Amino acid sequence: MVSEEKLKKVISEILKGYGENEESALLAADCLVKAEMRGISTHGTYLLIPMFQRVKGGMLDLPTKITLVKENNATSIIDGGNGLGQLAARKAMCISIEKAKKYDVALTLVRNTNNIGFLGYYSNFAAQEGMIGFVGCNAASSMAPWGSSEAFLGANPISISIPAKNKKSIVMDMSSSVVARGKIRKASRNKEEIPLGWAIDKEGNPTTDPNEALKGTLLPIAGPKGSALAIIVDIIAGMLSGSRFGLEVKTFHELEGATGVGAFCMAIDIKKFYDLDCFCSMVDSYICSIKNLKKVKNVTEVYLPGELEFISEQESREEGIKLDSKIIESLNDILEKLGSNLKLVHD
Amino acid sequence: MVSEEKLKKVISEILKGYGENEESALLAADCLVKAEMRGISTHGTYLLIPMFQRVKGGMLDLPTKITLVKENNATSIIDGGNGLGQLAARKAMCISIEKAKKYDVALTLVRNTNNIGFLGYYSNFAAQEGMIGFVGCNAASSMAPWGSSEAFLGANPISISIPAKNKKSIVMDMSSSVVARGKIRKASRNKEEIPLGWAIDKEGNPTTDPNEALKGTLLPIAGPKGSALAIIVDIIAGMLSGSRFGLEVKTFHELEGATGVGAFCMAIDIKKFYDLDCFCSMVDSYICSIKNLKKVKNVTEVYLPGELEFISEQESREEGIKLDSKIIESLNDILEKLGSNLKLVHD
Repeated sequence: MVSEEKLKKVISEILKGYGENEESALLAADCLVKAEMRGISTHGTYLLIPMFQRVKGGMLDLPTKITLVKENNATSIIDGGNGLGQLAARKAMCISIEKAKKYDVALTLVRNTNNIGFLGYYSNFAAQEGMIGFVGCNAASSMAPWGSSEAFLGANPISISIPAKNKKSIVMDMSSSVVARGKIRKASRNKEEIPLGWAIDKEGNPTTDPNEALKGTLLPIAGPKGSALAIIVDIIAGMLSGSRFGLEVKTFHELEGATGVGAFCMAIDIKKFYDLDCFCSMVDSYICSIKNLKKVKNVTEVYLPGELEFISEQESREEGIKLDSKIIESLNDILEKLGSNLKLVHD
Repeated sequence: MVSEEKLKKVISEILKGYGENEESALLAADCLVKAEMRGISTHGTYLLIPMFQRVKGGMLDLPTKITLVKENNATSIIDGGNGLGQLAARKAMCISIEKAKKYDVALTLVRNTNNIGFLGYYSNFAAQEGMIGFVGCNAASSMAPWGSSEAFLGANPISISIPAKNKKSIVMDMSSSVVARGKIRKASRNKEEIPLGWAIDKEGNPTTDPNEALKGTLLPIAGPKGSALAIIVDIIAGMLSGSRFGLEVKTFHELEGATGVGAFCMAIDIKKFYDLDCFCSMVDSYICSIKNLKKVKNVTEVYLPGELEFISEQESREEGIKLDSKIIESLNDILEKLGSNLKLVHD
């Protein structure tokens, strides 16, 4: 087990070694640590490995320089400068929150960034400010539009968060595909089979082999519905932002050049509609109503969206963060290559 | 076959007979006719039957009186006055479009309305104005949150439309459930079985009997993902608008009192981000790219979201609208009861 503080220190040390500045390294580290704590390890410390490759390959521009491209009343576009996606998305949500205070609802688009990590992190920023947060981003093509067998769309995830009062926020965070590509990459790393229904191979046949699935395409949720969602997200996050979309978006996990990922961050100010305190109390009651519903056989608890992740975060805070031994090895290897004296040790 | 014009005349005659005023009756009729033309008959003329029951039962307040409850910069809440949902949702989208011209993005919430028909109708209004439209509404509980066997959520649909230049808009329009409850009601009316995976009976068992399914609950798309989406839509459309949510929303299809449906209509002004003409051309190219992808076996064409519905609309315009003979019978019965001289005849 590794403590939150220790892991954050190691990650920010690594990010500084990559060329990020101190303040930004700490901010980005927070996103990666929270991913580990919430049990979303595909968006956690693992990302430091492809980042290392990209830094070495000259494909990640650090320190991250974010510039304002365009600004209107409630909307803006920022350029992520091919830096850390975690910083660009954070900045975008902060802008939307500030603008929503004035205009009630605000939308900031991000162009030219990279993998932004897990989206619930940013939508939840809005919830913490008494707003509804709505985030989406595109990704390298890994999924065929419904009816096609050729990858064109990314797993293009969205997240919406709604604040509660004494309960944890409701955090919907889902990809347009049955699973995120990261889960298949993880199965591949762990030499595990994947369930049928996650993906098809490059000929369009169902497969349980993660490596065949990585060469083939992911399956969208609910067929044409997930396919439609991925198209919409690609157009708003990628095309409208002036970033890349469709086949032009490159994966963060191979050295094929800048990824050109685009994202959107929207904030809706609840108190422009409803007394915030009353609203959050109603959300608390709503959560209770759902948790008190009759359960299906063999289920002992109904969980709200994001609840399992918050429970995992709390456990990690109390008991420490459990990291994969291979990841620890990789991080220590990176630390050594960067000439750092830090070393990550599992207690 | 019935012509668009004729059907619109009959429907508006019926709506006027129910107590709606002339102008509003024509507007609402347009939504019902478009649903029929696009092949979404569950949201078409069929709705005139439960409307008739509700008018007789004193549960639909016509003519529809829409009032502005609250207004800020880019946001508003309107009250649908327990009238026609088609009019309230239309009004909400019109307000959002106007406000988005000034503030770039705008959100209007609707409380105290009824079944708003098919959502793509309203999101597409925004697309026609060079904007992205985003619509959602809640509905009577028919779906159990993931992990529960008790209906609490509606099939709570969302729709997002994106304009193209020479092509038809991209219109995502989907419920949070595997199918809309209307499809199961239709199977029940037609005494047809439903596929496994659409719903569970009231004990939580899979069922192919539409009547058992109507007593049980719908299944959400992609399990916890669809469940999360329905929760989010219920909270924004129902709770934030000051309308009903969860178990309090009543079905339009039984006489259990006002439904208390809530909705949201958002418009995002594209030209605040990108030259509108360029953007729409890019959407055209994007559509072409998708249509040119390799198809899966036995599929001859990849359809964009909403494309099949636009094709059906065009066919209906050219060849006439094909109505179910039972629906024609019901409509003629209603016309007679209303003392109208009109009669619907299939050519």
